[in-house]
Amino acid sequence: MIKKFLEISFKKDGQHSPLYLQLESEIIQLICRGVLKPGQALPSSRELAQSLKLNRKTVVATYEELGAQGWVETRERSGVYVSSHLPDTSAHAINPNSKKLTRSRQPGYPLIIKRPSNGTTRIDPNVEIITPGMPTPLYKIDDGFPDPRIAPIEQLVREYRRFGKSRLTNRLLMYGPEQGSYHLRVELAKFLNKTRGMQVTEKEILITKGTQMAIYLTTQLLVRPGDTVFVPEPGYLDANEAFKLAGANLVFIPVDKEGMDVDRIEQLCKKKVPKMIYIIPHHHRPTTVTLSAERRMRLMNLARKYRFALLEDDYDFDYHFTSSPLLPLASLDTAGHIIYVGSFCKSIAPGIRIGFMVAPEVVISEAAALRKLIDRQGEQLLEEATAELLSAGEISRHIKKSHKVYQGRLENTCRLLREHLQDYLTFERPNGGLAIWATYSKNISASAVALNAEKLGLKISDGRNYFFQPNISRPHDFIRIGYCSLDETEMAGAIDIWKQALTPFAPKKKGKNGSVK
Amino acid sequence: MIKKFLEISFKKDGQHSPLYLQLESEIIQLICRGVLKPGQALPSSRELAQSLKLNRKTVVATYEELGAQGWVETRERSGVYVSSHLPDTSAHAINPNSKKLTRSRQPGYPLIIKRPSNGTTRIDPNVEIITPGMPTPLYKIDDGFPDPRIAPIEQLVREYRRFGKSRLTNRLLMYGPEQGSYHLRVELAKFLNKTRGMQVTEKEILITKGTQMAIYLTTQLLVRPGDTVFVPEPGYLDANEAFKLAGANLVFIPVDKEGMDVDRIEQLCKKKVPKMIYIIPHHHRPTTVTLSAERRMRLMNLARKYRFALLEDDYDFDYHFTSSPLLPLASLDTAGHIIYVGSFCKSIAPGIRIGFMVAPEVVISEAAALRKLIDRQGEQLLEEATAELLSAGEISRHIKKSHKVYQGRLENTCRLLREHLQDYLTFERPNGGLAIWATYSKNISASAVALNAEKLGLKISDGRNYFFQPNISRPHDFIRIGYCSLDETEMAGAIDIWKQALTPFAPKKKGKNGSVK
Repeated sequence: MIKKFLEISFKKDGQHSPLYLQLESEIIQLICRGVLKPGQALPSSRELAQSLKLNRKTVVATYEELGAQGWVETRERSGVYVSSHLPDTSAHAINPNSKKLTRSRQPGYPLIIKRPSNGTTRIDPNVEIITPGMPTPLYKIDDGFPDPRIAPIEQLVREYRRFGKSRLTNRLLMYGPEQGSYHLRVELAKFLNKTRGMQVTEKEILITKGTQMAIYLTTQLLVRPGDTVFVPEPGYLDANEAFKLAGANLVFIPVDKEGMDVDRIEQLCKKKVPKMIYIIPHHHRPTTVTLSAERRMRLMNLARKYRFALLEDDYDFDYHFTSSPLLPLASLDTAGHIIYVGSFCKSIAPGIRIGFMVAPEVVISEAAALRKLIDRQGEQLLEEATAELLSAGEISRHIKKSHKVYQGRLENTCRLLREHLQDYLTFERPNGGLAIWATYSKNISASAVALNAEKLGLKISDGRNYFFQPNISRPHDFIRIGYCSLDETEMAGAIDIWKQALTPFAPKKKGKNGSVK
Repeated sequence: MIKKFLEISFKKDGQHSPLYLQLESEIIQLICRGVLKPGQALPSSRELAQSLKLNRKTVVATYEELGAQGWVETRERSGVYVSSHLPDTSAHAINPNSKKLTRSRQPGYPLIIKRPSNGTTRIDPNVEIITPGMPTPLYKIDDGFPDPRIAPIEQLVREYRRFGKSRLTNRLLMYGPEQGSYHLRVELAKFLNKTRGMQVTEKEILITKGTQMAIYLTTQLLVRPGDTVFVPEPGYLDANEAFKLAGANLVFIPVDKEGMDVDRIEQLCKKKVPKMIYIIPHHHRPTTVTLSAERRMRLMNLARKYRFALLEDDYDFDYHFTSSPLLPLASLDTAGHIIYVGSFCKSIAPGIRIGFMVAPEVVISEAAALRKLIDRQGEQLLEEATAELLSAGEISRHIKKSHKVYQGRLENTCRLLREHLQDYLTFERPNGGLAIWATYSKNISASAVALNAEKLGLKISDGRNYFFQPNISRPHDFIRIGYCSLDETEMAGAIDIWKQALTPFAPKKKGKNGSVK
């Protein structure tokens, strides 16, 4: 019987484990499932080898292995038996003719699906999934990312490599501090103080994997189920989902040209004080507006009055074109209300996962303890390499250099949009940030355009990634146009395809320039 | 007055922001704190420059910047004024003589410290904190880590570097799949199937940052406050803390020479079915024992009967010396009970943060959605580099090579322990794993020994990292002796110091060999 079983499930196709491991695993399975009972004799190695067409040595090795592990026992001059110490489970033995010796594809325990969600399936236009056989679009207009082709990746990898050879590496390859590399925290404190007028020390900094982890840690630390969190709408959906995951009640605050509506915040505070307000004061995501001086002042006063935490997401500090970048709220924080989060996602590349959280030492120390339980620590080699780039001024130099490049691309993209897409959308040139916020004309469906564009080779936002409340109908669809990751020729090509994808929505009365259906 | 203020808080010491940023930030502060009122005139740039001993251009630039940001307004032929649109907060203005314009070091919001803990402050002997000025111990006996000096780090960094130069890099530097690199998941599925007799596909794998993240994700997915989780005692404390963090009630299961006590588990299941059992069947951490065949069978049957999840931590698969490594429970899992977690921490290095979680696709997909909110994704360059090492067979070759090295070090360490420390501790040679579990003689305090050793230049466990229940007194202290990260000479040196640190505990009656007090 055992031979019959093994013949059924045994696979010699080379896709699977080595034969001896397969045989070992199959015999253990047969024992566990009660097909082979404790004390039962196994076929001789010669017999089994013959019927399975295996080398006899393979079977002998398998029996020895099973013996060493306690599954079988060898009785002298008699043969190999299932170990008599094992429990008898033949009462619930499976049908010997069943092929059910394979892995279950379903969990055998209750799983409550509690995936946080705003109710729609969002396709994140920013994610590059690299799977073989999938066609690559000609162009992709993203949500506002830098161009990694001009980023100091070679310098970073050079540092990484240097560490890979140095004596110090052996320490860096062991476990390290959950708060992040000391060296990086010191360099980052200098960098933040210098560029953002802050006054922080390395003790008030936690190195994270990108801004998202800083948002997650802050939320897990401060927000309990039922707490209220004020969030901007439109806003950043992955932050909102992190708040929902912690059980927060989200209250949506409208955003206008001066940023989040602080009048509304004040009204709502009088009714119920939030635990936390999430705010992106500089280049609000997605609309790129910057919180006005007057609102900054009032918001800080409200924080002092009502003692809520302000989670300041400064994801996009470096690229501002009308003046110097605005100082973060954190640089004005004399009363300890701000948790300041950011990353090198925009100044190096999104794939280089170095972010940070700045807060009073007691908060950072709690966040570090929590982080230890999540993933123990960051990538020390990468953190050290980033510290070297900061210390050598490479990152500042890169920001300065790319600032010019991106400003050129912004002007070019604005020009192209005005020249080619003015029938379909309106926008204002942003003061900074890596994207343009545009409004489609009435009745143009962002998702239909995205679908058309994809067929023509352009990947572009379907407009679903900006509002968290999916069921409120709006007269216009919106789109965030990242203008940095494509150079001038590429952007011209992308906008050309985009225009073609928009043709079905062309205003009816015009028609001279052809191309209208 | 403004001049007086600025003179107080202005720092020209070069440790801080550039002067124009400091000045900008200070003036904004004075406005926000109500010292400067809306509409109030500011000193002329010439006047301010003189009194602060700054270049007048700096002050002019600052005023322009403040104007662009809406803090001040320039009235023609009159001068610069605080913007009259700002709210008047002079009602709660701070005392003009106070120096309180600096950052608060305390949070301005309620912070509930809920750091999970077993009640003691544990010093993790495995963590290397690299801060300048701290003396490095001569030797360190760790908890059971590999020797990164023989790990394929150069190969890894070479791959990393290759990606740093290739065209593909630009995609790898953008956002990627939260489930981890497709390439790595495919290679890892092959590797697990080949080495562990598993039958998984890339869809059933999530790439994590080390085993800890796999444990955290599983727990957040399955365990709700009040759920029961069975854990081994002694066991792995960072896992226990992750369960506590999710609100689990921990039930401690004793561990003997055959692993976790399955009789006890069966008894307890009859009273209350756990949501999950955490188990380390292969080289149990810390005691290094392996779960017997009989217990494996019974545990799998209990899982089917009571429908609990089994979180199988196979942190230390590769190094087994008496037979091939034992197949994980996951290779026998026909009913979907196992969540299998592991990492390359032992086969490459702890600092290379690549781990994995294997479970049915629906569980993996939930875990990936959760992971996206935590830190969005892993380090794609590192994941691709690891995939290359796997695919080229580098990791398998390294395991084979290091297997021999470590077996030699195990024999050597056992010999040294028997020769030099037999008066102080007992141990059994382990069948595998990277550490030896030893029991100190009665009345030897592991923490006192660790303290003595540290003074002499040896870092060694204080014995607190193995039991989660701190208040149960035990007749003996224990220690886990990692024998892999030191070579034979280094281990001889380390054990020599250890012996000196043990001298105060020398048995009284002996004395011939000197060295007893």
